[in-house]
Amino acid sequence: MRQSQLFTKTRREIPADEESRNAQLLIRAGFVHKEMAGVYTFLPLGLRVLDNIAQVVREEMNELGAQEIRLTTLQDKELWDKTGRWSDVVIDDWFKTKLANQTEVGLGLTHEEPLTNLLSQYVNSYKDLPLLIYQIQSKFRNELRAKSGLLRGREFLMKDLYSFARNQKEHDQVYNQVAKAYDKIFKRLGLGDRTYRTFASGGSFAKFSDEFQTLTEAGEDTIYLDYDKKVAVNKEVYTDEVLKELGLKRDQLNEVKAAEVGNIFSLGTKYSKPLGLNFVDDNGHEQNVIMGCYGIGISRLMGVIAECFADDKGLVWPAVVAPFNVHLVRLGDSPAVVKAAEELYTILTKNGGGVLYDDRDESAGTKFADADLIGIPYRLVISDKTLESKKYELKSRTGRDAVLLNKDELLKKLA
Amino acid sequence: MRQSQLFTKTRREIPADEESRNAQLLIRAGFVHKEMAGVYTFLPLGLRVLDNIAQVVREEMNELGAQEIRLTTLQDKELWDKTGRWSDVVIDDWFKTKLANQTEVGLGLTHEEPLTNLLSQYVNSYKDLPLLIYQIQSKFRNELRAKSGLLRGREFLMKDLYSFARNQKEHDQVYNQVAKAYDKIFKRLGLGDRTYRTFASGGSFAKFSDEFQTLTEAGEDTIYLDYDKKVAVNKEVYTDEVLKELGLKRDQLNEVKAAEVGNIFSLGTKYSKPLGLNFVDDNGHEQNVIMGCYGIGISRLMGVIAECFADDKGLVWPAVVAPFNVHLVRLGDSPAVVKAAEELYTILTKNGGGVLYDDRDESAGTKFADADLIGIPYRLVISDKTLESKKYELKSRTGRDAVLLNKDELLKKLA
Repeated sequence: MRQSQLFTKTRREIPADEESRNAQLLIRAGFVHKEMAGVYTFLPLGLRVLDNIAQVVREEMNELGAQEIRLTTLQDKELWDKTGRWSDVVIDDWFKTKLANQTEVGLGLTHEEPLTNLLSQYVNSYKDLPLLIYQIQSKFRNELRAKSGLLRGREFLMKDLYSFARNQKEHDQVYNQVAKAYDKIFKRLGLGDRTYRTFASGGSFAKFSDEFQTLTEAGEDTIYLDYDKKVAVNKEVYTDEVLKELGLKRDQLNEVKAAEVGNIFSLGTKYSKPLGLNFVDDNGHEQNVIMGCYGIGISRLMGVIAECFADDKGLVWPAVVAPFNVHLVRLGDSPAVVKAAEELYTILTKNGGGVLYDDRDESAGTKFADADLIGIPYRLVISDKTLESKKYELKSRTGRDAVLLNKDELLKKLA
Repeated sequence: MRQSQLFTKTRREIPADEESRNAQLLIRAGFVHKEMAGVYTFLPLGLRVLDNIAQVVREEMNELGAQEIRLTTLQDKELWDKTGRWSDVVIDDWFKTKLANQTEVGLGLTHEEPLTNLLSQYVNSYKDLPLLIYQIQSKFRNELRAKSGLLRGREFLMKDLYSFARNQKEHDQVYNQVAKAYDKIFKRLGLGDRTYRTFASGGSFAKFSDEFQTLTEAGEDTIYLDYDKKVAVNKEVYTDEVLKELGLKRDQLNEVKAAEVGNIFSLGTKYSKPLGLNFVDDNGHEQNVIMGCYGIGISRLMGVIAECFADDKGLVWPAVVAPFNVHLVRLGDSPAVVKAAEELYTILTKNGGGVLYDDRDESAGTKFADADLIGIPYRLVISDKTLESKKYELKSRTGRDAVLLNKDELLKKLA
């Protein structure tokens, strides 16, 4: 894409109404626009990152054999009454509205109820199970405070997967498979070495749930981490009893700030029972389906990645989520430079993993500062100087020095 | 995908609470699930169709040079107060809700206000224009009645494009380019020969707007169509004066039912003026930006395509939007048949444009009825009989007779 045609522009000043570093940088670089606290529009560069994160998650969900659907935002009160979760006392961050006929409806903040109800129309026999079903969709939560940028949204993009098993053993197997897929996802996103499986409270059907916590000072959670064992405990279950059960010792644990990028829960029959999701087992007996749910915050991950990798010059995107692979920067407008840059733009658009081409009439200083702020993995400079040397000047966003490559070397490197 | 693993199942009976043919068929075939009137979940087969339609539209928008973003559902009252559109008298199908601090917010039903406001931060000079910006996103409209299945949703997927031009001439050029892209989209979706550009009322800034109306008995609009001139007039502007102006004659016009699949509007300065979207022209004068908006109902198109092509056996999908290209039907479970079907499934998964493989233990009658109901373009049968003849039996969904092809012929046909 030609940067002269990109409608967003970078800005130097920090937005006055934004405390969080991820949102400050994402706004300054033109990735998001703040509509209200915790509610962000995704601009062209930001939408590309968001789609890239979602695609990594989608690929790993499909690899598990999970089936993608799209549930609705508008929620039927009747279903949530059956599980007791319509009440604002039980769930305190509902958004609710009314149909024209005055019927109350909610905005989806999670989707156990509608999906369990839907499946009761399709699942009858043990032969229909196990199942894994997921969606990638906007969720709405009426947060009292939303000051962490993309780390806590009132409207945010989430992947929610639900599992449906015949018995506890089958559920446990599925649960562990999903946990492994989560490890793979965070590794692919570049967060593997700073994301820890963390014991948290489990609710009615399991002693613990598992959170996936990424270390960052911007995180809203406090966890107690054993670096050697690569396991952590959330503050909410940080008791002597729990530590003993998990074989952890207080003096081995470090109190650190972290952001919850994923969580997995065993739900037992909490939803299948009140909503009548049953199956006939191979002995002819009717049983409740055993469920699990597995969330990943897609837009939150964008904020977490921004927080984890940014430096004092701006954003730094891992290649797998970057909006473009190469930032082609043309310095000067001599006919030779323009011609060479246009040619390379055409070639790299086909074979370079995506190019943002800075074809603007700006100074080298402005162009380099913008490239650093935007954070594309490679910066490729074409100028009279590089043309003279018959080389291209390539610098990785995090590298200190540029390297000079000939055309073949360059195309090989960026392939 | 293996049909034995697809969690949805077809059903014979028509859903009791559904009047519209598109929703009846889509529910029976397992494409959608009704959450409430005008609110549908998209199941695996349905989501594939929806994504395919969106992709055709996205490609044509990108071809125009439009930039994709994702605006938010939650809407800031302040912005809509500035244009006078917050009032329920002016817009009578708002969904509204409240933040935890009691601030009123709306659910997005169109997005002129937030996008115009957003752009006022990026557009300063005539050099920043013209611009085309679009999104593909769920919209919410609090319809009093929603009885037409996917043709009228309370929650529905829409593509909305907005144009920003320096003057009326530039706007008119952009408007005509978008109109041409719309023709191309409806042609690609198989609706070209039954979709007509239709004059409708234009609002404050233009005498007319253009609707794109697809002929179908299920449509909620009445239009007056001149088949020879390929032009139509919406009932709302069907007056002697208008007909005279357009050079149309009453006795050449046919009253027909149609569904509005797209519309394009000239907005003038209706939004740019109150929201302060200005630019400095090349004479140094400040001017309001001239805007246009261009909608296409993505989920409505799914319903319209269902209505237009379905026959008495079920759905019929044009190849470009079909959930899969081939429905591979295995008859019987002899080792030779299973082996041949599995092999072909592997080959076609790679080179066949997507395969749904009916590997279930069901009768030929059930499998054929399901294939007809689901409506995938090609049905490919493997049985002891076809193996004996060393041929594959391929039938198009709408063709009367199957043809016998050898492997090379088959792969060539499906490539």
